[in-house]
Amino acid sequence: MSVEFRVDPARYRHWRVDYDGPVATVTMDTDEHGGLVPGYELKLNSYDLGVDIELYDITQRLRFEHPEVAAVVLTSGKDKIFCAGANIRMLAASPHHHKVNFCKFTNETRNGIEDATANSGQTWIAALNGTASGGGYELALACEHIMLVDDRSSAVSLPELPLLGVLPGTGGLTRVVDKRHVRRDLADYFSTRPEGVGGKKAAAWRLVDEVVPRTAWDQTVTARARERATAPRPAKSQGVTLTPLAKERSADAIQYRYVKAKLDPARGVAEITIEGPQDDPPTDAAGLHAQGDQFWTLAMTRELDDLILDLRTNEPELGTWVLRTQGDPEKVLAYDRLLSNGGTPEDWLPKEITGYLKRTLKRLDVTSRSLIALIEPGSCFAGSLLELALAADRSFQLAGTREEDDPDNEPATITIGQMNLGPLPMANGLTRLQTRFLGDDKALAEAERNQQQKLEAEAAEHLGLVTFAPDDIDWADEVRIAVEERNSFSPDALSGLEANYRFAGPETLETKIFGRLSAWQNWIFTRPNASGPDGALRKFGTGQRADFDRKRV
Amino acid sequence: MSVEFRVDPARYRHWRVDYDGPVATVTMDTDEHGGLVPGYELKLNSYDLGVDIELYDITQRLRFEHPEVAAVVLTSGKDKIFCAGANIRMLAASPHHHKVNFCKFTNETRNGIEDATANSGQTWIAALNGTASGGGYELALACEHIMLVDDRSSAVSLPELPLLGVLPGTGGLTRVVDKRHVRRDLADYFSTRPEGVGGKKAAAWRLVDEVVPRTAWDQTVTARARERATAPRPAKSQGVTLTPLAKERSADAIQYRYVKAKLDPARGVAEITIEGPQDDPPTDAAGLHAQGDQFWTLAMTRELDDLILDLRTNEPELGTWVLRTQGDPEKVLAYDRLLSNGGTPEDWLPKEITGYLKRTLKRLDVTSRSLIALIEPGSCFAGSLLELALAADRSFQLAGTREEDDPDNEPATITIGQMNLGPLPMANGLTRLQTRFLGDDKALAEAERNQQQKLEAEAAEHLGLVTFAPDDIDWADEVRIAVEERNSFSPDALSGLEANYRFAGPETLETKIFGRLSAWQNWIFTRPNASGPDGALRKFGTGQRADFDRKRV
Repeated sequence: MSVEFRVDPARYRHWRVDYDGPVATVTMDTDEHGGLVPGYELKLNSYDLGVDIELYDITQRLRFEHPEVAAVVLTSGKDKIFCAGANIRMLAASPHHHKVNFCKFTNETRNGIEDATANSGQTWIAALNGTASGGGYELALACEHIMLVDDRSSAVSLPELPLLGVLPGTGGLTRVVDKRHVRRDLADYFSTRPEGVGGKKAAAWRLVDEVVPRTAWDQTVTARARERATAPRPAKSQGVTLTPLAKERSADAIQYRYVKAKLDPARGVAEITIEGPQDDPPTDAAGLHAQGDQFWTLAMTRELDDLILDLRTNEPELGTWVLRTQGDPEKVLAYDRLLSNGGTPEDWLPKEITGYLKRTLKRLDVTSRSLIALIEPGSCFAGSLLELALAADRSFQLAGTREEDDPDNEPATITIGQMNLGPLPMANGLTRLQTRFLGDDKALAEAERNQQQKLEAEAAEHLGLVTFAPDDIDWADEVRIAVEERNSFSPDALSGLEANYRFAGPETLETKIFGRLSAWQNWIFTRPNASGPDGALRKFGTGQRADFDRKRV
Repeated sequence: MSVEFRVDPARYRHWRVDYDGPVATVTMDTDEHGGLVPGYELKLNSYDLGVDIELYDITQRLRFEHPEVAAVVLTSGKDKIFCAGANIRMLAASPHHHKVNFCKFTNETRNGIEDATANSGQTWIAALNGTASGGGYELALACEHIMLVDDRSSAVSLPELPLLGVLPGTGGLTRVVDKRHVRRDLADYFSTRPEGVGGKKAAAWRLVDEVVPRTAWDQTVTARARERATAPRPAKSQGVTLTPLAKERSADAIQYRYVKAKLDPARGVAEITIEGPQDDPPTDAAGLHAQGDQFWTLAMTRELDDLILDLRTNEPELGTWVLRTQGDPEKVLAYDRLLSNGGTPEDWLPKEITGYLKRTLKRLDVTSRSLIALIEPGSCFAGSLLELALAADRSFQLAGTREEDDPDNEPATITIGQMNLGPLPMANGLTRLQTRFLGDDKALAEAERNQQQKLEAEAAEHLGLVTFAPDDIDWADEVRIAVEERNSFSPDALSGLEANYRFAGPETLETKIFGRLSAWQNWIFTRPNASGPDGALRKFGTGQRADFDRKRV
């Protein structure tokens, strides 16, 4: 079954969104029978990938279609339960790569919620009108403010370890100690209590920000939302509708307007090409608004986002993604310039588009596929699109031209623009250029000094901006060997290698969640103590105890 | 088979150490037939745990017995090979917990080498007189300066991924990008080339610091050692001999002079008790030197170090360590004070003892066992010994006295001393107190304001210094439940939980290596692609290719 990430808000099955001026209320009310695949029921507001795909869509539409919103209340439509977390039967029945992919996507959506609070002026508030357990509490942890109803039964909990023998998979452990600063011994105790902690103790331990009696619940939630809805926001009328994304998909190709991918299972490769803009950008922000979601950067980013999710989820055996671009580098830089000139409250849209591109490139960074960028004549690796080459594990730039095929073409160039110098940071908080030249300030300064220059292969290689610069004679062989070789290596070891090399430098909540916590979670998921026939994940709900190999490793 | 970590330098099988004034030369020359267990030959200076146990002993004796040494040259006694890394057949035949334990210990030894350069005035130089591959190159990466002979055949390499389908297990990936600042795409290429990189390219890519022609090798190595031997060092005569450690071990108990452990396989528990000093400390540094390795802090630390290694390696099913102390808190603080007053070049010994305690407590932090501290009447959790309680996942302090058994005893206290405020940082660079109160400066300041105060249970709990403070009526049940419960959980999930909660806050090379890289390595080791019957680790050397499940996760 192929998972589809494009959703139509008119057909949400699990969520409601209500708008009241600057406050939006997002209500989770999962349809028990609306699971993505048969075999489990989404009871107690438990979720699967399908539920989270809708949530992701909500976060995107809040940003683009509802710029007037300044506070988002996340709550539940069920009685006495906020959210029971990821559906256990779904997890137990899923193959390992699906579990990992599911956790990755839900992590990205929660990071996106934090990013909305931090960078989009949309502050998320978790209004826990009932128990939030496991992934339900982790969802709350992504919000800026957590309110819990104080009714002697509602609690927050992370019951994964005691009940399932796995870790909370969506950043819970990291956010508890590193974001909310719960004391580590209390966190340890909390994470081994299936029933969790509620009432005043939950607030005293910093697991939630406040507990509120049920009698005062509605008015307090409303008050908090109003208090938090302080960021200056544009009018609703300025919103940009995200129209349905046109996409053609077959077994061996995926095609959008600007992005296409050729799927080659025999070689284990997806060949991805991104087209630059065909026209000049509008001359000002008003023109940008008029183009709305047809504006090249936004349209291209939506397509790339969908493609990454599609390939990750539906094509796990395509282990290498080859990245190409096609078009006029000057036009890419012109679009980038228009976006860079935005950023005032009136000009929320350029900033929002740039933020979306930032998150999409981060999605690429944490994708467990080898990324190889090919910089050839006719390509447009400039500014925002140069980030693709900088995100790649290796890049090849053709030196000179193709002597036989196309001797009169201009040689391939790359160009550093404003977009490479700040607006698109990685999860480690650094730009991809800074990460590339970590600890080598001289090389970084030299690269920055060459911004806006069209750099041919030799110059780019000399500056350390590309890995290799073979000429026409060597190109085909070098590239072919790099790609074939990648396909011959252990896919697990490649995932580990790439995860370690892509995030050198400082650590943040995000890198901890993707780099460390996910690795532990992966390990635990594969161990017989969790997923073996007698493991805790398989025994859950059977009334039988898991049979553990007690050796600590 | 029980692994023994105490070694007698007169019986080293794999190493030679030569002294020449301020320069020591450590030569690896493994005995092919000296493997720790039968079944493999230690060819090409490959190593197993036994080889690394000797290396660890060397690093310790260099610090304590040879304080005159200011530079350490690490080289090979074999022709054309520096070190081929961990022995593959040993790895392939080892159970998972042994592989992980082996990697952890070798990591600690390499971190100890970096610590000697940074904090003991003993700068390590890797003199690669032949190829250094895998763990051999990782050993070099722990040195401050790497020299490689330039002879058209010697190279450095990390062939684990292409040849074995696993990651370099001893910090290689982290040190390549985060310490040596090799550019990430070059690092990627390097780590997929089984033959590695040698000559000028190795230096240009920063994989080594210099390449030296064979004709100039000896004199250049000597010159570099002399140049680096600049730290002011005390006279050789001041060295402290590390005499053999007295230890009695049976199936259910381990006993040293100050440290003892009761082993309880039925409950999955090791009950560890550390005795404080019986006598007052010497009055000055001269008295400390005179006591040498019988000085309480040093003697106790050596015992604790050996116990941690013994339990970790030989008792993997004892998943919970219960930590107690016994003695006079005032005397512990008096020993701490004597150590704190050292630190000048003449007083190298107090600093060295404190550094050893620091490393031993770090060893405890990265030990994958649940740590529960019990603070009872008669205990001495003060200063350096309070660190044990702060290292624990949870601590219990008895409120009041034992009404029936011992009503006249003084209630248990804890005392914050100088040792808790700086000299014993964790791997994250913070003290255990700072980590405990991460993001809560007020609580940290309040705790620090109460230093030197004997804090009974209520006060300690109020300050957040202990987890729980049950009274005599509740004590037995609460402790019993905590310990029993721990033994009922998935050991894997506990390891993951503890690894995430113990290291909140900033990240360092060390936390990246233990927290992130190790988790990836654990995961990859357990996957069928590495250790399954058709995995790369099992197929190595058979001439057959591994059969990979190609799904990326």
